[in-house]
Amino acid sequence: MTSASSADQVDESPTSHVTAEHPGVNELFAVLAYGEVAAFYRLTDEARMAPDLRGRISMASMAAAEMIHYELLRDALESRGVDVVTAMSRYAAALENYHRLTMPSTWLEALVKTYVGDALAADLYLEIADSLPDEVADVVRAALSETGHSQFVVAEVRAAVTASGKQRSRLALWSRRLFGEAITQAQYLLADHDELVDLLISGAGGLSQLSSFFERLQHTHDRRMRELGLS
Amino acid sequence: MTSASSADQVDESPTSHVTAEHPGVNELFAVLAYGEVAAFYRLTDEARMAPDLRGRISMASMAAAEMIHYELLRDALESRGVDVVTAMSRYAAALENYHRLTMPSTWLEALVKTYVGDALAADLYLEIADSLPDEVADVVRAALSETGHSQFVVAEVRAAVTASGKQRSRLALWSRRLFGEAITQAQYLLADHDELVDLLISGAGGLSQLSSFFERLQHTHDRRMRELGLS
Repeated sequence: MTSASSADQVDESPTSHVTAEHPGVNELFAVLAYGEVAAFYRLTDEARMAPDLRGRISMASMAAAEMIHYELLRDALESRGVDVVTAMSRYAAALENYHRLTMPSTWLEALVKTYVGDALAADLYLEIADSLPDEVADVVRAALSETGHSQFVVAEVRAAVTASGKQRSRLALWSRRLFGEAITQAQYLLADHDELVDLLISGAGGLSQLSSFFERLQHTHDRRMRELGLS
Repeated sequence: MTSASSADQVDESPTSHVTAEHPGVNELFAVLAYGEVAAFYRLTDEARMAPDLRGRISMASMAAAEMIHYELLRDALESRGVDVVTAMSRYAAALENYHRLTMPSTWLEALVKTYVGDALAADLYLEIADSLPDEVADVVRAALSETGHSQFVVAEVRAAVTASGKQRSRLALWSRRLFGEAITQAQYLLADHDELVDLLISGAGGLSQLSSFFERLQHTHDRRMRELGLS
């Protein structure tokens, strides 16, 4: 599987290296869709650690936003003649593994995970979206649109790490681990899904660009850690 | 606490017996709001019994719709200068009791509970809405609007009870119990909240109308049981 198939085609958009018919597009929508459902159930699980009703409701609102995004992806796949449940089942293992390996043990860990995990997924997919035709990129961007819910996370985490240097070290280590597991699971996932690799390589402008792609992810993650007061 | 306070006021709407300033209105929005949050978490819990990913996703979509409705009520309370979390905490006990006393033990019981519980809550609140000023009634109706998600419940339950007379008897008893617990908990809740009682009595057109109010609820519940193939 190489990027030759897309290079053969005349591309009307200057930023797009792949077409909407690329088989990786359905796969991208499917992995995003499973990601939304997995995040929904994870948020509702982790909400059990909330110290009060207000925290539980914030998690529920974030979870609900994931399902709205899921429905966008389901509609996009259906309009492409693809059954969402069948398509996304192939991605269950990698995403469930990520969540199983990063079970938070405190409410603050759950908050950091929500923030880091959501943001990292958004970075990853938006990088890919930049190289996709507009009709596909629009679906990806809408599915990852900021809902504004995560601002309560920043405020709560910053307050906790400002008050306690021990919490700060613990949560800095925790966010480092989240980043590492996410990259590891993304690599496992890509190893099993050739169409996605091809989409990624075509989009990045060739294999040589892939390493700068991962560097950018790391860079954005570092900036986010500073926002949370964790570096 | 009597209905005299609202009877003293000139009412411009022919169907409305209470004004938007009635103290029961905030209480009504608060109990509805807690009901949405409780339903959200209950649906996500009960989704664990789903036999497959498709069922789990249907429950997640229904849960997400509850949070959208919650957000409507939160906004309505905020525009009335009321903090939703503080206001709704007073209703936690009654609603959590209902859910605790009606824990489904199978996926089919969970589906019937979703359908019956949601519909019963909607009947109850819509009856009240009919007697409220338009600006208040509109919020109630929007918060209870059909999301269309429950059609999958009807199809699945009908198929199961058509195939098994034993399931049919079990689920008929179950739905009878759900109705009984809902009415019992609603009565406990009213006993603790005078403003709501006043709203209900003012709305129903006096205490004498209250019994026909509960009769109508029973009647609509019976019709719903026939839809599910349970009578």
